[in-house]
Amino acid sequence: MRYQLSYWPMIQGRGEYIRLALEDAGVAYEDVARGPSGMAAMSRMMEGGDRPPFAPPFLKAGKLVIGQTANILLYLGSRHGLAPKAEPGKLWVHQLQLTIADFVLEAHDTHHPLGPSLYYEEQRTPAKKRTEEFWDERVPKYLGYFERLVSDSGGTFTTGRRATYVDLSLFQIVAGLRYAFPERMKQFERKIPKLVELHDRVAARPNIKAYLASDRRIPFNEDDIFRCYKELDG
Amino acid sequence: MRYQLSYWPMIQGRGEYIRLALEDAGVAYEDVARGPSGMAAMSRMMEGGDRPPFAPPFLKAGKLVIGQTANILLYLGSRHGLAPKAEPGKLWVHQLQLTIADFVLEAHDTHHPLGPSLYYEEQRTPAKKRTEEFWDERVPKYLGYFERLVSDSGGTFTTGRRATYVDLSLFQIVAGLRYAFPERMKQFERKIPKLVELHDRVAARPNIKAYLASDRRIPFNEDDIFRCYKELDG
Repeated sequence: MRYQLSYWPMIQGRGEYIRLALEDAGVAYEDVARGPSGMAAMSRMMEGGDRPPFAPPFLKAGKLVIGQTANILLYLGSRHGLAPKAEPGKLWVHQLQLTIADFVLEAHDTHHPLGPSLYYEEQRTPAKKRTEEFWDERVPKYLGYFERLVSDSGGTFTTGRRATYVDLSLFQIVAGLRYAFPERMKQFERKIPKLVELHDRVAARPNIKAYLASDRRIPFNEDDIFRCYKELDG
Repeated sequence: MRYQLSYWPMIQGRGEYIRLALEDAGVAYEDVARGPSGMAAMSRMMEGGDRPPFAPPFLKAGKLVIGQTANILLYLGSRHGLAPKAEPGKLWVHQLQLTIADFVLEAHDTHHPLGPSLYYEEQRTPAKKRTEEFWDERVPKYLGYFERLVSDSGGTFTTGRRATYVDLSLFQIVAGLRYAFPERMKQFERKIPKLVELHDRVAARPNIKAYLASDRRIPFNEDDIFRCYKELDG
Protein backbone atom coordinates (compact mmCIF):
# COMPACT_ATOMS: atom_id res chain seq x y z
CA MET A 1 0.00 0.00 0.00
CA ARG A 2 1.28 3.42 -1.02
CA TYR A 3 0.01 6.40 0.96
CA GLN A 4 -1.56 9.26 -0.92
CA LEU A 5 -1.15 12.65 0.70
CA SER A 6 -3.40 15.48 -0.47
CA TYR A 7 -2.39 19.04 0.28
CA TRP A 8 -2.02 22.37 -1.49
CA PRO A 9 0.86 21.98 -3.94
CA MET A 10 2.42 25.44 -3.60
CA ILE A 11 3.02 25.64 0.13
CA GLN A 12 4.52 23.69 3.00
CA GLY A 13 1.64 24.64 5.28
CA ARG A 14 0.08 22.09 7.56
CA GLY A 15 0.97 19.33 5.11
CA GLU A 16 4.66 19.76 5.85
CA TYR A 17 4.43 18.09 9.26
CA ILE A 18 3.16 14.99 7.49
CA ARG A 19 5.68 15.17 4.65
CA LEU A 20 8.48 15.35 7.22
CA ALA A 21 7.17 12.25 8.98
CA LEU A 22 6.75 10.25 5.78
CA GLU A 23 10.18 11.31 4.54
CA ASP A 24 11.95 10.58 7.81
CA ALA A 25 10.31 7.16 8.00
CA GLY A 26 11.36 6.45 4.41
CA VAL A 27 7.79 5.55 3.50
CA ALA A 28 6.64 5.62 -0.13
CA TYR A 29 3.92 8.19 -0.74
CA GLU A 30 2.34 10.12 -3.53
CA ASP A 31 1.91 13.86 -3.08
CA VAL A 32 -1.38 13.85 -4.99
CA ALA A 33 -1.92 17.54 -5.71
CA ARG A 34 1.63 17.95 -7.02
CA GLY A 35 1.14 15.29 -9.68
CA PRO A 36 -0.51 15.69 -13.09
CA SER A 37 -4.09 17.06 -12.74
CA GLY A 38 -3.25 17.06 -9.08
CA MET A 39 -5.71 19.67 -7.86
CA ALA A 40 -8.60 17.96 -9.66
CA ALA A 41 -7.60 14.62 -8.13
CA MET A 42 -7.45 16.20 -4.68
CA SER A 43 -10.89 17.81 -5.09
CA ARG A 44 -12.42 14.55 -6.24
CA MET A 45 -11.00 12.75 -3.24
CA MET A 46 -12.30 15.45 -0.93
CA GLU A 47 -15.85 15.31 -2.16
CA GLY A 48 -16.23 11.59 -2.71
CA GLY A 49 -16.58 9.05 0.03
CA ASP A 50 -18.74 8.94 3.12
CA ARG A 51 -16.15 10.46 5.42
CA PRO A 52 -15.24 13.66 3.61
CA PRO A 53 -12.46 15.71 5.21
CA PHE A 54 -13.22 19.34 6.02
CA ALA A 55 -10.00 20.58 4.45
CA PRO A 56 -6.56 19.43 3.28
CA PRO A 57 -4.29 17.87 4.37
CA PHE A 58 -5.72 14.39 4.26
CA LEU A 59 -4.10 11.02 3.80
CA LYS A 60 -5.44 8.04 1.95
CA ALA A 61 -4.23 4.80 3.49
CA GLY A 62 -5.87 1.92 1.67
CA LYS A 63 -9.59 2.49 2.10
CA LEU A 64 -9.13 4.91 4.96
CA VAL A 65 -9.17 8.67 4.40
CA ILE A 66 -7.78 10.54 7.41
CA GLY A 67 -7.95 14.29 7.87
CA GLN A 68 -6.44 16.82 10.31
CA THR A 69 -2.66 17.00 10.54
CA ALA A 70 -2.31 15.80 14.12
CA ASN A 71 -4.75 12.95 13.49
CA ILE A 72 -2.75 11.81 10.47
CA LEU A 73 0.42 11.85 12.55
CA LEU A 74 -1.37 9.90 15.27
CA TYR A 75 -2.13 7.25 12.66
CA LEU A 76 1.33 7.22 11.08
CA GLY A 77 3.46 7.69 14.19
CA SER A 78 3.22 4.34 15.92
CA ARG A 79 3.14 2.49 12.59
CA HIS A 80 6.46 3.90 11.42
CA GLY A 81 8.57 4.22 14.54
CA LEU A 82 7.85 7.90 15.12
CA ALA A 83 5.72 7.51 18.26
CA PRO A 84 5.34 4.97 21.06
CA LYS A 85 2.92 2.10 20.48
CA ALA A 86 1.55 1.99 24.04
CA GLU A 87 -1.37 4.27 24.79
CA PRO A 88 0.16 6.58 27.44
CA GLY A 89 3.15 7.52 25.28
CA LYS A 90 1.00 7.73 22.18
CA LEU A 91 -1.40 10.18 23.85
CA TRP A 92 1.47 12.25 25.24
CA VAL A 93 3.13 12.66 21.86
CA HIS A 94 -0.23 13.48 20.28
CA GLN A 95 -0.92 16.04 23.00
CA LEU A 96 2.36 17.78 22.20
CA GLN A 97 1.51 17.78 18.50
CA LEU A 98 -1.85 19.42 19.25
CA THR A 99 0.00 22.10 21.20
CA ILE A 100 2.29 22.62 18.21
CA ALA A 101 -0.81 22.91 15.99
CA ASP A 102 -2.12 25.69 18.26
CA PHE A 103 1.19 27.49 17.95
CA VAL A 104 1.25 27.13 14.16
CA LEU A 105 -2.19 28.71 13.96
CA GLU A 106 -1.02 31.62 16.11
CA ALA A 107 2.01 32.04 13.83
CA HIS A 108 -0.36 32.17 10.87
CA ASP A 109 -2.57 34.71 12.58
CA THR A 110 0.31 37.19 12.94
CA HIS A 111 -0.29 38.10 9.29
CA HIS A 112 -4.02 37.24 9.26
CA PRO A 113 -5.53 38.51 12.51
CA LEU A 114 -8.80 39.48 10.81
CA GLY A 115 -9.29 36.02 9.42
CA PRO A 116 -8.20 33.80 6.56
CA SER A 117 -10.53 35.20 3.90
CA LEU A 118 -8.97 38.68 3.66
CA TYR A 119 -5.59 39.46 2.12
CA TYR A 120 -2.64 40.43 4.27
CA GLU A 121 -2.66 43.82 2.60
CA GLU A 122 -6.11 44.45 4.07
CA GLN A 123 -4.94 43.86 7.64
CA ARG A 124 -1.46 45.31 7.94
CA THR A 125 -2.06 47.44 11.02
CA PRO A 126 -3.76 44.73 13.10
CA ALA A 127 -1.07 42.32 11.87
CA LYS A 128 1.59 44.52 13.45
CA LYS A 129 -0.21 44.52 16.78
CA ARG A 130 -0.81 40.82 16.72
CA THR A 131 2.83 40.18 15.83
CA GLU A 132 4.01 42.23 18.83
CA GLU A 133 1.78 40.22 21.11
CA PHE A 134 2.95 37.00 19.48
CA TRP A 135 6.60 37.75 20.18
CA ASP A 136 6.08 39.34 23.59
CA GLU A 137 3.82 36.67 25.03
CA ARG A 138 3.13 33.65 22.90
CA VAL A 139 6.52 32.66 21.47
CA PRO A 140 8.20 32.74 24.91
CA LYS A 141 5.33 30.75 26.41
CA TYR A 142 5.18 28.03 23.75
CA LEU A 143 8.87 27.71 22.93
CA GLY A 144 9.79 28.02 26.60
CA TYR A 145 7.54 25.04 27.27
CA PHE A 146 9.18 22.89 24.60
CA GLU A 147 12.67 24.04 25.58
CA ARG A 148 11.99 22.80 29.10
CA LEU A 149 10.68 19.47 27.83
CA VAL A 150 13.76 18.85 25.69
CA SER A 151 15.97 19.95 28.54
CA ASP A 152 14.25 17.63 31.04
CA SER A 153 13.77 14.66 28.74
CA GLY A 154 16.94 12.85 29.73
CA GLY A 155 17.56 12.12 26.08
CA THR A 156 18.38 14.00 22.94
CA PHE A 157 14.79 14.35 21.79
CA THR A 158 11.64 15.91 23.22
CA THR A 159 10.31 12.77 24.83
CA GLY A 160 13.54 10.87 25.41
CA ARG A 161 16.09 8.91 23.45
CA ARG A 162 13.98 8.28 20.37
CA ALA A 163 12.83 10.80 17.81
CA THR A 164 9.09 11.25 17.32
CA TYR A 165 7.06 13.27 14.86
CA VAL A 166 7.03 16.01 17.51
CA ASP A 167 10.77 16.52 17.00
CA LEU A 168 10.28 16.79 13.26
CA SER A 169 7.54 19.36 13.84
CA LEU A 170 9.72 21.39 16.21
CA PHE A 171 12.41 21.44 13.54
CA GLN A 172 9.83 22.93 11.19
CA ILE A 173 8.79 25.55 13.75
CA VAL A 174 12.36 26.75 14.26
CA ALA A 175 12.96 26.79 10.50
CA GLY A 176 9.70 28.63 9.89
CA LEU A 177 10.32 31.30 12.51
CA ARG A 178 13.83 31.83 11.13
CA TYR A 179 12.38 32.37 7.69
CA ALA A 180 9.51 34.63 8.75
CA PHE A 181 11.20 36.69 11.45
CA PRO A 182 14.97 36.53 10.87
CA GLU A 183 15.83 39.48 13.12
CA ARG A 184 13.51 38.63 15.96
CA MET A 185 14.49 35.00 15.87
CA LYS A 186 18.22 35.81 15.94
CA GLN A 187 17.61 37.62 19.23
CA PHE A 188 15.35 34.95 20.60
CA GLU A 189 17.41 31.85 19.86
CA ARG A 190 19.74 32.39 22.80
CA LYS A 191 16.75 31.58 25.01
CA ILE A 192 16.10 28.23 23.39
CA PRO A 193 19.50 26.55 22.97
CA LYS A 194 18.05 23.05 23.28
CA LEU A 195 15.48 23.63 20.56
CA VAL A 196 18.16 25.01 18.26
CA GLU A 197 20.26 21.89 18.87
CA LEU A 198 17.19 19.76 18.24
CA HIS A 199 16.58 21.58 14.96
CA ASP A 200 20.13 20.83 13.83
CA ARG A 201 19.90 17.22 14.92
CA VAL A 202 16.72 16.69 12.92
CA ALA A 203 18.13 18.50 9.88
CA ALA A 204 21.11 16.11 9.94
CA ARG A 205 19.02 12.93 9.90
CA PRO A 206 19.88 11.26 6.57
CA ASN A 207 16.32 11.08 5.20
CA ILE A 208 15.48 14.60 6.28
CA LYS A 209 18.74 15.92 4.88
CA ALA A 210 18.00 14.29 1.52
CA TYR A 211 14.45 15.59 1.57
CA LEU A 212 15.46 19.17 2.34
CA ALA A 213 17.94 19.11 -0.55
CA SER A 214 15.35 17.70 -2.97
CA ASP A 215 12.69 19.51 -4.96
CA ARG A 216 10.07 17.69 -2.92
CA ARG A 217 10.69 20.33 -0.25
CA ILE A 218 8.68 23.36 -1.33
CA PRO A 219 10.54 26.60 -0.51
CA PHE A 220 9.05 28.92 2.12
CA ASN A 221 6.97 31.64 0.48
CA GLU A 222 4.45 34.39 1.14
CA ASP A 223 1.35 32.29 0.50
CA ASP A 224 2.33 30.02 3.35
CA ILE A 225 1.91 29.96 7.12
CA PHE A 226 5.37 31.35 7.85
CA ARG A 227 5.70 34.53 5.80
CA CYS A 228 8.52 37.00 5.72
CA TYR A 229 7.17 40.57 5.84
CA LYS A 230 9.93 42.97 6.81
CA GLU A 231 7.56 45.34 8.58
CA LEU A 232 6.53 42.55 10.96
CA ASP A 233 10.08 41.54 11.78
CA GLY A 234 10.57 44.92 13.48
CA MET B 1 -10.80 5.34 39.81
CA ARG B 2 -12.39 8.77 39.82
CA TYR B 3 -11.34 11.17 37.09
CA GLN B 4 -10.03 14.58 38.05
CA LEU B 5 -10.70 17.32 35.53
CA SER B 6 -8.73 20.54 35.81
CA TYR B 7 -10.01 23.63 34.10
CA TRP B 8 -10.69 27.30 34.84
CA PRO B 9 -13.55 27.37 37.34
CA MET B 10 -15.39 30.47 36.05
CA ILE B 11 -15.95 29.54 32.41
CA GLN B 12 -17.25 26.72 30.24
CA GLY B 13 -14.45 27.23 27.74
CA ARG B 14 -12.65 24.27 26.27
CA GLY B 15 -13.32 22.27 29.42
CA GLU B 16 -17.03 22.14 28.63
CA TYR B 17 -16.61 19.60 25.85
CA ILE B 18 -15.11 17.25 28.40
CA ARG B 19 -17.66 18.01 31.10
CA LEU B 20 -20.45 17.21 28.63
CA ALA B 21 -18.86 13.86 27.81
CA LEU B 22 -18.31 12.91 31.45
CA GLU B 23 -21.84 13.98 32.37
CA ASP B 24 -23.49 12.21 29.47
CA ALA B 25 -21.57 9.03 30.23
CA GLY B 26 -22.59 9.29 33.88
CA VAL B 27 -18.98 8.99 34.99
CA ALA B 28 -17.90 10.19 38.42
CA TYR B 29 -15.39 13.03 38.25
CA GLU B 30 -14.02 15.81 40.34
CA ASP B 31 -13.90 19.30 38.84
CA VAL B 32 -10.65 20.11 40.63
CA ALA B 33 -10.44 23.88 40.26
CA ARG B 34 -14.02 24.34 41.43
CA GLY B 35 -13.36 22.62 44.73
CA PRO B 36 -11.78 24.10 47.88
CA SER B 37 -8.34 25.59 47.11
CA GLY B 38 -9.11 24.51 43.59
CA MET B 39 -6.86 26.85 41.65
CA ALA B 40 -3.88 25.96 43.84
CA ALA B 41 -4.56 22.27 43.32
CA MET B 42 -4.79 22.78 39.58
CA SER B 43 -1.51 24.72 39.49
CA ARG B 44 0.28 22.06 41.49
CA MET B 45 -0.93 19.37 39.15
CA MET B 46 0.14 21.39 36.15
CA GLU B 47 3.67 21.92 37.36
CA GLY B 48 4.35 18.56 38.92
CA GLY B 49 4.97 15.38 37.02
CA ASP B 50 7.17 14.56 34.07
CA ARG B 51 4.48 15.14 31.46
CA PRO B 52 3.29 18.65 32.28
CA PRO B 53 0.36 19.91 30.19
CA PHE B 54 0.83 23.21 28.37
CA ALA B 55 -2.51 24.56 29.57
CA PRO B 56 -5.86 23.50 31.04
CA PRO B 57 -7.98 21.51 30.47
CA PHE B 58 -6.25 18.35 31.56
CA LEU B 59 -7.58 15.13 32.98
CA LYS B 60 -6.02 12.93 35.60
CA ALA B 61 -6.95 9.30 35.05
CA GLY B 62 -5.10 7.18 37.58
CA LYS B 63 -1.43 7.92 36.97
CA LEU B 64 -2.05 9.38 33.56
CA VAL B 65 -2.33 13.14 33.01
CA ILE B 66 -3.83 13.94 29.62
CA GLY B 67 -3.96 17.42 28.08
CA GLN B 68 -5.66 19.01 25.06
CA THR B 69 -9.45 18.80 24.84
CA ALA B 70 -9.65 16.60 21.76
CA ASN B 71 -6.98 14.26 23.13
CA ILE B 72 -8.91 13.86 26.38
CA LEU B 73 -12.05 13.04 24.42
CA LEU B 74 -10.07 10.55 22.34
CA TYR B 75 -9.12 8.83 25.59
CA LEU B 76 -12.59 8.95 27.16
CA GLY B 77 -14.72 8.34 24.07
CA SER B 78 -14.18 4.67 23.37
CA ARG B 79 -13.98 3.85 27.09
CA HIS B 80 -17.41 5.26 27.84
CA GLY B 81 -19.49 4.50 24.78
CA LEU B 82 -19.08 7.90 23.18
CA ALA B 83 -16.90 6.82 20.26
CA PRO B 84 -16.27 3.64 18.29
CA LYS B 85 -13.62 1.28 19.63
CA ALA B 86 -12.21 0.25 16.24
CA GLU B 87 -9.47 2.47 14.82
CA PRO B 88 -11.17 3.79 11.65
CA GLY B 89 -14.24 5.06 13.48
CA LYS B 90 -12.17 6.32 16.36
CA LEU B 91 -9.96 8.38 14.03
CA TRP B 92 -12.98 9.71 12.15
CA VAL B 93 -14.71 10.93 15.29
CA HIS B 94 -11.44 12.45 16.54
CA GLN B 95 -10.95 14.17 13.18
CA LEU B 96 -14.38 15.79 13.51
CA GLN B 97 -13.56 16.92 17.04
CA LEU B 98 -10.35 18.54 15.81
CA THR B 99 -12.39 20.40 13.19
CA ILE B 100 -14.74 21.55 15.95
CA ALA B 101 -11.71 22.72 17.94
CA ASP B 102 -10.62 24.82 14.96
CA PHE B 103 -14.06 26.36 14.80
CA VAL B 104 -14.14 27.10 18.52
CA LEU B 105 -10.84 28.95 18.21
CA GLU B 106 -12.23 31.02 15.35
CA ALA B 107 -15.31 31.81 17.45
CA HIS B 108 -12.98 32.98 20.22
CA ASP B 109 -10.98 35.10 17.82
CA THR B 110 -14.05 37.13 16.82
CA HIS B 111 -13.57 39.08 20.04
CA HIS B 112 -9.80 38.58 20.29
CA PRO B 113 -8.36 39.01 16.78
CA LEU B 114 -5.21 40.69 18.10
CA GLY B 115 -4.43 37.82 20.39
CA PRO B 116 -5.37 36.42 23.78
CA SER B 117 -3.20 38.71 25.91
CA LEU B 118 -5.05 41.98 25.17
CA TYR B 119 -8.51 42.86 26.47
CA TYR B 120 -11.50 42.93 24.18
CA GLU B 121 -11.80 46.67 24.80
CA GLU B 122 -8.39 47.11 23.18
CA GLN B 123 -9.46 45.45 19.96
CA ARG B 124 -13.05 46.45 19.29
CA THR B 125 -12.59 47.66 15.73
CA PRO B 126 -10.63 44.63 14.48
CA ALA B 127 -13.13 42.45 16.38
CA LYS B 128 -15.94 43.86 14.27
CA LYS B 129 -14.11 43.09 11.06
CA ARG B 130 -13.20 39.62 12.17
CA THR B 131 -16.79 38.95 13.22
CA GLU B 132 -18.09 39.94 9.79
CA GLU B 133 -15.69 37.57 8.14
CA PHE B 134 -16.60 34.86 10.63
CA TRP B 135 -20.30 35.07 9.80
CA ASP B 136 -19.87 35.65 6.06
CA GLU B 137 -17.37 32.90 5.42
CA ARG B 138 -16.47 30.69 8.31
CA VAL B 139 -19.78 29.85 10.02
CA PRO B 140 -21.41 28.81 6.70
CA LYS B 141 -18.37 26.73 5.81
CA TYR B 142 -18.02 24.89 9.13
CA LEU B 143 -21.67 24.51 10.04
CA GLY B 144 -22.59 23.68 6.45
CA TYR B 145 -20.08 20.83 6.64
CA PHE B 146 -21.56 19.41 9.85
CA GLU B 147 -25.12 19.94 8.61
CA ARG B 148 -24.29 17.81 5.59
CA LEU B 149 -22.73 15.10 7.73
CA VAL B 150 -25.77 14.86 10.00
CA SER B 151 -28.04 14.91 6.98
CA ASP B 152 -26.09 12.13 5.23
CA SER B 153 -25.39 9.98 8.28
CA GLY B 154 -28.37 7.71 7.87
CA GLY B 155 -28.99 8.00 11.58
CA THR B 156 -30.00 10.63 14.06
CA PHE B 157 -26.46 11.57 15.04
CA THR B 158 -23.44 12.93 13.17
CA THR B 159 -21.84 9.59 12.50
CA GLY B 160 -24.91 7.35 12.52
CA ARG B 161 -27.30 5.83 15.01
CA ARG B 162 -25.17 6.26 18.11
CA ALA B 163 -24.27 9.50 19.83
CA THR B 164 -20.59 10.38 20.13
CA TYR B 165 -18.76 13.16 21.88
CA VAL B 166 -18.94 15.03 18.56
CA ASP B 167 -22.70 15.35 18.95
CA LEU B 168 -22.29 16.72 22.45
CA SER B 169 -19.76 19.24 21.13
CA LEU B 170 -22.06 20.32 18.31
CA PHE B 171 -24.79 20.90 20.89
CA GLN B 172 -22.37 23.21 22.67
CA ILE B 173 -21.52 25.07 19.46
CA VAL B 174 -25.18 25.77 18.67
CA ALA B 175 -25.83 26.83 22.28
CA GLY B 176 -22.73 29.03 22.29
CA LEU B 177 -23.54 30.78 19.02
CA ARG B 178 -27.11 31.39 20.25
CA TYR B 179 -25.74 33.01 23.37
CA ALA B 180 -23.05 35.10 21.69
CA PHE B 181 -24.89 36.16 18.54
CA PRO B 182 -28.66 35.86 19.18
CA GLU B 183 -29.73 37.97 16.19
CA ARG B 184 -27.30 36.55 13.68
CA MET B 185 -27.98 33.01 14.82
CA LYS B 186 -31.75 33.46 14.57
CA GLN B 187 -31.26 34.30 10.89
CA PHE B 188 -28.79 31.54 10.30
CA GLU B 189 -30.58 28.62 11.94
CA ARG B 190 -32.91 28.10 9.00
CA LYS B 191 -29.84 26.97 7.05
CA ILE B 192 -28.93 24.28 9.57
CA PRO B 193 -32.17 22.50 10.49
CA LYS B 194 -30.43 19.19 11.17
CA LEU B 195 -27.96 20.74 13.57
CA VAL B 196 -30.77 22.48 15.42
CA GLU B 197 -32.58 19.15 15.75
CA LEU B 198 -29.36 17.56 16.92
CA HIS B 199 -28.94 20.29 19.53
CA ASP B 200 -32.43 19.60 20.88
CA ARG B 201 -31.91 15.85 20.86
CA VAL B 202 -28.70 16.19 22.88
CA ALA B 203 -30.29 18.66 25.30
CA ALA B 204 -33.05 16.12 25.97
CA ARG B 205 -30.72 13.27 26.89
CA PRO B 206 -31.46 12.56 30.57
CA ASN B 207 -27.92 13.04 31.88
CA ILE B 208 -27.37 16.18 29.83
CA LYS B 209 -30.73 17.58 30.83
CA ALA B 210 -29.91 17.03 34.50
CA TYR B 211 -26.48 18.56 34.04
CA LEU B 212 -27.77 21.67 32.30
CA ALA B 213 -30.27 22.22 35.11
CA SER B 214 -27.61 21.80 37.81
CA ASP B 215 -25.13 24.31 39.16
CA ARG B 216 -22.36 22.19 37.70
CA ARG B 217 -23.15 23.90 34.37
CA ILE B 218 -21.42 27.27 34.55
CA PRO B 219 -23.52 29.99 32.86
CA PHE B 220 -22.21 31.57 29.65
CA ASN B 221 -20.40 34.81 30.42
CA GLU B 222 -18.10 37.46 28.98
CA ASP B 223 -14.85 35.90 30.14
CA ASP B 224 -15.61 32.84 28.08
CA ILE B 225 -15.13 31.74 24.47
CA PHE B 226 -18.68 32.57 23.42
CA ARG B 227 -19.29 36.17 24.49
CA CYS B 228 -22.30 38.32 23.90
CA TYR B 229 -21.27 41.80 22.76
CA LYS B 230 -24.20 43.58 21.18
CA GLU B 231 -22.04 45.54 18.77
CA LEU B 232 -20.73 42.30 17.29
CA ASP B 233 -24.18 40.78 16.83
CA GLY B 234 -24.92 43.50 14.24
